[in-house]
Parts: sequence; C-alpha cells; structure tokens
Amino acid sequence: MDNIKSYVAEHKERFINELIELLKIPSVSADSAFSQDVMNTAEAVKESLEKAGCDLVEICETPGYPIVYGEKTIDKNLPTVLVYGHYDVQPADPIELWTSPPFEPVIKPTDIHPEGAIFARGACDDKGQMYMHVKALEYMVQNNTLPCNVKFMIEGEEEVGSPSLGWFIERNHEKLKNDVILISDTGMISNTQPSITTGLRGLSYVEVEVTGPNRDLHSGLYGGAVANPINILAKMIAQLHDENNHITIPGFYDKVEELSREERDEMAKAPFSLEAYKKALDIEDVHGEATYTTNERNSIRPTLDVNGIWGGYIGEGAKTVIASKAYAKISMRLVPDQDWKEITDLFTKHFEGIAPKGVKVKVTPHHGGQAYVTPIDSIGYRAAASAYNESFGIKPIPVRSGGSIPIVALFEKELKSKTVMMGFGLDSDAIHSPNEHFGVFNYLKGIETIPLFYKYFTEMSK
Amino acid sequence: MDNIKSYVAEHKERFINELIELLKIPSVSADSAFSQDVMNTAEAVKESLEKAGCDLVEICETPGYPIVYGEKTIDKNLPTVLVYGHYDVQPADPIELWTSPPFEPVIKPTDIHPEGAIFARGACDDKGQMYMHVKALEYMVQNNTLPCNVKFMIEGEEEVGSPSLGWFIERNHEKLKNDVILISDTGMISNTQPSITTGLRGLSYVEVEVTGPNRDLHSGLYGGAVANPINILAKMIAQLHDENNHITIPGFYDKVEELSREERDEMAKAPFSLEAYKKALDIEDVHGEATYTTNERNSIRPTLDVNGIWGGYIGEGAKTVIASKAYAKISMRLVPDQDWKEITDLFTKHFEGIAPKGVKVKVTPHHGGQAYVTPIDSIGYRAAASAYNESFGIKPIPVRSGGSIPIVALFEKELKSKTVMMGFGLDSDAIHSPNEHFGVFNYLKGIETIPLFYKYFTEMSK
Repeated sequence: MDNIKSYVAEHKERFINELIELLKIPSVSADSAFSQDVMNTAEAVKESLEKAGCDLVEICETPGYPIVYGEKTIDKNLPTVLVYGHYDVQPADPIELWTSPPFEPVIKPTDIHPEGAIFARGACDDKGQMYMHVKALEYMVQNNTLPCNVKFMIEGEEEVGSPSLGWFIERNHEKLKNDVILISDTGMISNTQPSITTGLRGLSYVEVEVTGPNRDLHSGLYGGAVANPINILAKMIAQLHDENNHITIPGFYDKVEELSREERDEMAKAPFSLEAYKKALDIEDVHGEATYTTNERNSIRPTLDVNGIWGGYIGEGAKTVIASKAYAKISMRLVPDQDWKEITDLFTKHFEGIAPKGVKVKVTPHHGGQAYVTPIDSIGYRAAASAYNESFGIKPIPVRSGGSIPIVALFEKELKSKTVMMGFGLDSDAIHSPNEHFGVFNYLKGIETIPLFYKYFTEMSK
Repeated sequence: MDNIKSYVAEHKERFINELIELLKIPSVSADSAFSQDVMNTAEAVKESLEKAGCDLVEICETPGYPIVYGEKTIDKNLPTVLVYGHYDVQPADPIELWTSPPFEPVIKPTDIHPEGAIFARGACDDKGQMYMHVKALEYMVQNNTLPCNVKFMIEGEEEVGSPSLGWFIERNHEKLKNDVILISDTGMISNTQPSITTGLRGLSYVEVEVTGPNRDLHSGLYGGAVANPINILAKMIAQLHDENNHITIPGFYDKVEELSREERDEMAKAPFSLEAYKKALDIEDVHGEATYTTNERNSIRPTLDVNGIWGGYIGEGAKTVIASKAYAKISMRLVPDQDWKEITDLFTKHFEGIAPKGVKVKVTPHHGGQAYVTPIDSIGYRAAASAYNESFGIKPIPVRSGGSIPIVALFEKELKSKTVMMGFGLDSDAIHSPNEHFGVFNYLKGIETIPLFYKYFTEMSK
C-alpha cells in the first residue's frame, strides 16, 4: 500500500488547505450566536463528501443541528464501515489566551511537532480528525482500492452532548446499518508510540443554581445575617469530596467496575513520567483520589469536576454585594457499569439534600452518556491494530481514555455494532483549551493509516 | 422653622427634577468605561453648589477622580459644618433585573412609599442624600437663616474605597478645618421611626486568584488527576467558616469589641420582626454566627462574605473544561478595634496557608477602612437628635449599622472632629442592588431636617 504514501505526499498541500478552509468557519454549537456558522459547516462537509466520491450525500434535518450523511456502496455483500465524526467545535473562550485567533488557522512548529501543527479551534477535535476520513475515501475512490462499503454520519452537536443523535439513529436503523463503527475523536500516546482507545468514560453534566435572598443585597447591611449563595455553593461543592478526594454522593460508587490488581499492573506498563506530566502543566503536585495513580485517576476512576462557576460582581474593581444567586456547571466522568441517568439522579438528590435552609437549590441536567469498553479481540480492534502496525511500524497499545464520547454506548445499543476508536491526536494538542492544534504529521499519518484499516477489516471479515 | 416646610412645598417639583438630571449621568467609578461620566458628574455637582449659594467652589484634582469642594463662610468665629458625600455610584449590573433602566430615573409608588420613590442607580446612595444638603443650603442662603459656616467635600471614589481621599485630606488640613462632619449616606429604621447611625463596620476587601495547571484542560483527559482550581477555591472558601459560622482565620477575633449583655439587651429593643425580614427577602431561614441575633450579626459582629466568584466556562451550554484559574472577591466587615490592615494580612497569610500543593494562590488587597462609633453625648449627635425630633415629631433611636464608610475613621484621625451620620434612606431602598430607589418623602424630609441640625448645632456650640 505504498500508493497511499505517495498520494498523500503529492496532495498534502491541498489536504492541509482544505482543512484550513473548514477550520475558518466558527461552528460553536454551544452558543446560538454561531448557529449560521454551524449550518454553513454542515454544507461544507456535504460538499467535501461529494467531491471525495460518495454516491449519495444528504443534510438530514434533526430537532437540532443537522447530521451530514454520506455513503458509497460498492457491493451489498461486502462489509460496511460507518464513520462517525462531528463538525461542531468547543467555544473558543478564554479568547485572550490564544496566541493566534482561533478561527484564523496558522501552521507553526512546536517542540512535539517540529514539522508544524495547525493551530485553530477544532483543528484536532474533531474537524481535523474527521476530515482525515474524507481524504482517505478520496484516495481509495481515486485509486480504486476501496475494499468495502462506507457510510458517513457527521453530526453538529457533539460538543453539547449530541442531543439529536439518538433521535436520528432511532429513525434510521436501516440506513445506518453497518459492520463496524469507526471514529477518530481520541488520541494516541505519542507520534512514535501509537495506541488505540479501548475505553471511554461516561458523563453526567449538570448545572446548579443556588438562590438566597430574592435580590442582590448590600453586604454591609445584610452580611453575616443571611445565607450568601456564593459561600453556600462553595461549601456544597467542597462537601462533594471527602479528605481522600473520594466523591461523597451516596451510592455513587455502588456499580463502579473495580479492576483487578493484574489489570492495573498491566495498565501501569504504559510509558508515563509523573515529573514530565507535572512540568508540562507547571504544577507542584498532582491531586486526586487516594490509593490510585494519576493514570488510573483519569481513566478507570469516576470523577467530579466543576467546569464553571459564577455569581455576584465579577467586573473590574470592587462591589460590596451579596448576590441573590450563584451558579456552577458540574460534570462527572463515569466508568463502566455506572448509569449516567442514575448518577444524575443521585447527584440531584444529594445536592438538594445538603443545602441549608436559607437557600433554594435547582439542579438542571445538561446531558450525559454511558461509559464504553471496546473488546480487543474484536475484528474491528484487530484490523485497527494491524493498520497502525503497518503504518507506524510499531504495534499500538490499547489504552483507556478519561474522555467521553457518550454516543459510543448509544451506537452499540441501537445499531448493535462495535466501535473502533482510531485517534491520531496527542494529549498536548490542547483540545477544549486555547491554542488547540493538530500536528501536520498526525493529520497526514491518519490519512495514510485509515485505508489500511479498510483493507484489514474487509480481509478479516471474510 | 415652618419656613423650610413651605419652601420645600413650593419648590419640590424643581428639587426632584434637579436630582433626576444628576441621576441620569452614569457615574460608575468601578468601571473605567464610565470615566467621562464620572467627570461630568463632578462638574454638575460644582454647578449645583454655586447655584445654591457657595462663595467658592472648586474641582480639586487628585490621583483619581476629583473632589468637589465648596464653602460658604459667614463669620470666622462661628462653627463650621463639613458636609461629606459622594457623587459616584455602584455598578448597575445585573442590569437585566432592573424594571426600568438604571440611568433613566422614574418615579413610581411602592408599598413603603405610596407617595412615590425615585428609581435610579444612586437615587439614595448617595446622589439623593448628598443633594439634600445642597438644597438645604439653598434654603438657608435664600432665607438668610444659615447660622454658621459650611464646607462641602463631595468625592467620586467612595464606591471603590476612596483611594484618593486620604491623599486629599492630608494635603488640605487647613481648608477642611471644621467643628463637625455631617454625612447622609446611611439609613433610618422607618419613615415613622427615625434613627441615627452611631456605629459603622470596618472593611477589608480582597481579590483572590487560584491557579492550577498552566492552561485550561479537557476535563475528561485530566479530570480527577490534577487539582481543579474551582473545586479548590470552593473548598478554601468553605474552610473560612466553621460549623457555627465562626470565621476560622487565626487571630481574626482577637481585638473584636465584645459588647456587654446590657448593651446587647438595649440594642434588642429596636423594633424588628424576624418574620417580616424573612418574608421581605423570601428566605425560609436566616443564617449566621451561632449565639447572635440577626441584628447583632449585621452590626456588632465581623463577617466574611464572597461578593463575586468566577472561573471556567460560564457561557450558554456546556463545556467540559478544567479551568487554569478561578477567582473570588471577598470582603470582611470589621467591628471596632479590629485593624483592617492587620485583618487583611491575617486573611492573606491564612488563605495562602490552606492552599493544597497542586495550586498557587495570589491575594490582592482592594481597599479597606476602620470601624467607627459616634459618641451619643457629643454636640453633633445631640443636635442631630433634636433636628429629627422636631422634624418627625419622634425622638430618633441610635443604631449601629452593618455598612462601612471607611473614611469616617480617617476623618477623625486627620481632621480631629466627630462625624454625625444623618441618614434618610431605608433598608428597602435596594442600594447596591437592581431597582435602587429613594422615597420622595425621604428626600424632602431630609431637606427639611438638615437646616434644623445647623440651628441646634450652632446653638449648642455656644
């Protein structure tokens, strides 16, 4: 399959420029101010799939942002790969921390990417990784090497919890029928040590509101005499962890999958330097659940983090006010066997229960999803491992990721097929952060590796 | 002195309209976007003092916003009253909670003000209360009843802690020489029960910043493995109070003036309904330091309140981020004998001390001031009490306020004179809150009462 390497070498300028055009559209699904941009991005993805060689491409309406569906069928008796990706991106704030504007992509070298990385919101998550699949299809169609059927389902609401995806899948079982689902929305250990994500954490994301007095009050006249919603919210958040950083919500750990000592020892073999980790983040020490290592804390253990908090006067200078309300966005990462809806209920009940009498509490669930584990003896996993092995010259390591792609569990439930997560990003790519980027090496390597997956998957499926 | 009543009755439309014009200028000192408006307000105050009959009016430059100084000297052998007030106002946010725009004053009746109240930011605090003094002077000059000399010192930085006032006073001891300082920047119990504020709490206002990792992180990939600055900040804030809502900063209470049982019993005689208090704020219960009553908690006891908190993603929707930084604005109200600079140091040391290893903490003092008590046997207090008694037909009650006017302690130290706080606002006026207002009754009653103070103070000084 040296053809793909030469094809990529020949077209790499164009591949990069096409991605840059896509990255210029600020498709922030969380903020309705960008809704037209999100729609425009769907249109651009549709056109790219048509050009790459799909027989049929549709923009499918949903109750939210549309899903771009594409397909190329060569023989109904051959297997079908369903590619899932998303064309929406995270909000770019805090925008002042970007060294170049988030929607004006530039290529700059970094220590890890001496050959350059594309800096833009969505460069890695997930426009860049999704577009690798479009370009891989282009190669296979142009060179008549597509060995099986392919379908694309590219959504625009992943960053807000995919609220319309279940709706769409339920109504399109036949259309989406497949033998394996392929997603590039995760990372690998390094550019010299590929890995395949076999586990994803589940998620429960809620927003809480604490209301004290019915209006903002002067902190001199009322300070010390009424419950201050910010102080109370801080106290309630503090109570969610005990002194061992164990989460205190009753029942929270009841269904947590406990890994054996052997499994934990196996995981511990993945290359990891705590010193390098602390240095990269400029922290004096790590912080987490007692008796677990850093890599366990962020993969096999459930967590609870405040993702945002606000209340009172947050402008320039000082204001002596007791706010009427304080708010926080809180997410819990879940592990296999925890049910996100049950955990959301447990959180809500507990959080309401620990509120003192002087305040009212409202908990609003945002979204969630179940954890997922890919079996490493599945055809999909083995085909992916062979593809990486051939492309990188090194056998990939299976790893559990701390992130969540809630829809993976949904796919299995609704479409009855396994998902393979072939990620080409790196932890240092700053996804969800200012200065998100995606290595040019990684982007092109992804395009080279994907056709190998199709080849091995079709062969192994015979 | 029935003349003043008929003068007010005759000119009340104009008095209200003049105040409304002043309220239209958004003199928000905390936000530099309004700096030109603050300057314009100083100019308007200068003009009003000239029209009211001052011999000399100056806009005095300071390192910050200017101080408007005015004087009318009738006889150097007579006593001099120095009126202090401020022409700047609190920020208006949250602006969406105002029922009419904060800088477009309207008169509307309320349950407490059936004759109407002026709704605008600064209506009571302090443009309305300051302007009563301008109109009282106008009356006394027009009717040749000014019995002593008068000076005005109206500043534009009170709402940001009066950073330039000390600078100005130090350089103008002779100019500001006086026998009593008169301030209307406090409230009274009700329109049928006047009161005079004899105590003010001190203040220490700080901003804290908690830094975790050196950039925002994806909460899936890092959640549970690094210290989340928001969770840590919440925990640190929670630790500042114990289970009895006692402040835990070591040394915080060491110098607190402890009132005797008799003094507390005397205070408890002021009319107060806990049920009405809770109902007005729509809270199920009050909340504060164990073993103290609500009125003690907000007057004779020191407190610690978070006035603002922010960090992470606070926009629409959800973002799964671990913020690099979290912030809070925290103020402590202090009581006599606590030194605000010492308390600020104690806070800083303690707050830095309770930070876990995974974060860095920065504490920035904003401003502060000492607590103050006016002796009720002073000529100033007795003159004010006589003025209220004559004007309202009821003897006023001396009360301790929970608020702070940090410059009162400064006045005593620098100018060696006592301050009398003749406030005409009500607790329900929503100062520092949306829908601030000032009763038309209160505004006009203030104008009627102030000349009586001048009369009694001059007589008692003989």
